[in-house]
Amino acid sequence: MKSVGRHLILELWECRELNSPDVVEQALREATEACKANLLDLKVHTFSPQGVTGVAVVSESHILIHTWPELNYAAVDVFTCGDRAEPAAVVPVLQKHFGPQRIQVMEIRRGLVSE
Amino acid sequence: MKSVGRHLILELWECRELNSPDVVEQALREATEACKANLLDLKVHTFSPQGVTGVAVVSESHILIHTWPELNYAAVDVFTCGDRAEPAAVVPVLQKHFGPQRIQVMEIRRGLVSE
Repeated sequence: MKSVGRHLILELWECRELNSPDVVEQALREATEACKANLLDLKVHTFSPQGVTGVAVVSESHILIHTWPELNYAAVDVFTCGDRAEPAAVVPVLQKHFGPQRIQVMEIRRGLVSE
Repeated sequence: MKSVGRHLILELWECRELNSPDVVEQALREATEACKANLLDLKVHTFSPQGVTGVAVVSESHILIHTWPELNYAAVDVFTCGDRAEPAAVVPVLQKHFGPQRIQVMEIRRGLVSE
């Protein structure tokens, strides 16, 4: 089976630095680089009283981080199409910036077609 | 089990209008409204020779559309947190704008914790 892209769904628990837009932005920049994606646009939104959403649109699709500091939880999505990008390479970047004690990962192959 | 949010992964096949940034933008606006989300930012990127990516950042998380006109395929993600938003309400909007002959849907509950 051939697919258009790979989509990693990452659940990060017991994290730190979840309320810093700067950390989220830096993590997105390094994650983009780590998985060899080409950054087109990056935006970070902060929420009141807490929480950050960061979106990196890349040529290969997207990398997204949503944080819930009150739960020490972050939801991360890495969707890359093509053969060059390596979505799993974002994991060490997320570990470095958010220090999760636990990560759950699911990989979904998007646009799956029989050859 | 309680979750932070619901994430719908939608695979749309045999679609039309996949190369129009205007249609993608309009679909995102109506999808946001349909699922009762609050739009914070909307951006549409076009690719050469074809393909469109549209990102709607909403208070409740995100709605994303990536299109591959050459495959008549679109990958759509709708991630909403909170009780008010109804992610499944985007389906009629997607049907109206892209006319998929086939839709595959998966729902992932994000940030799942035992009560």
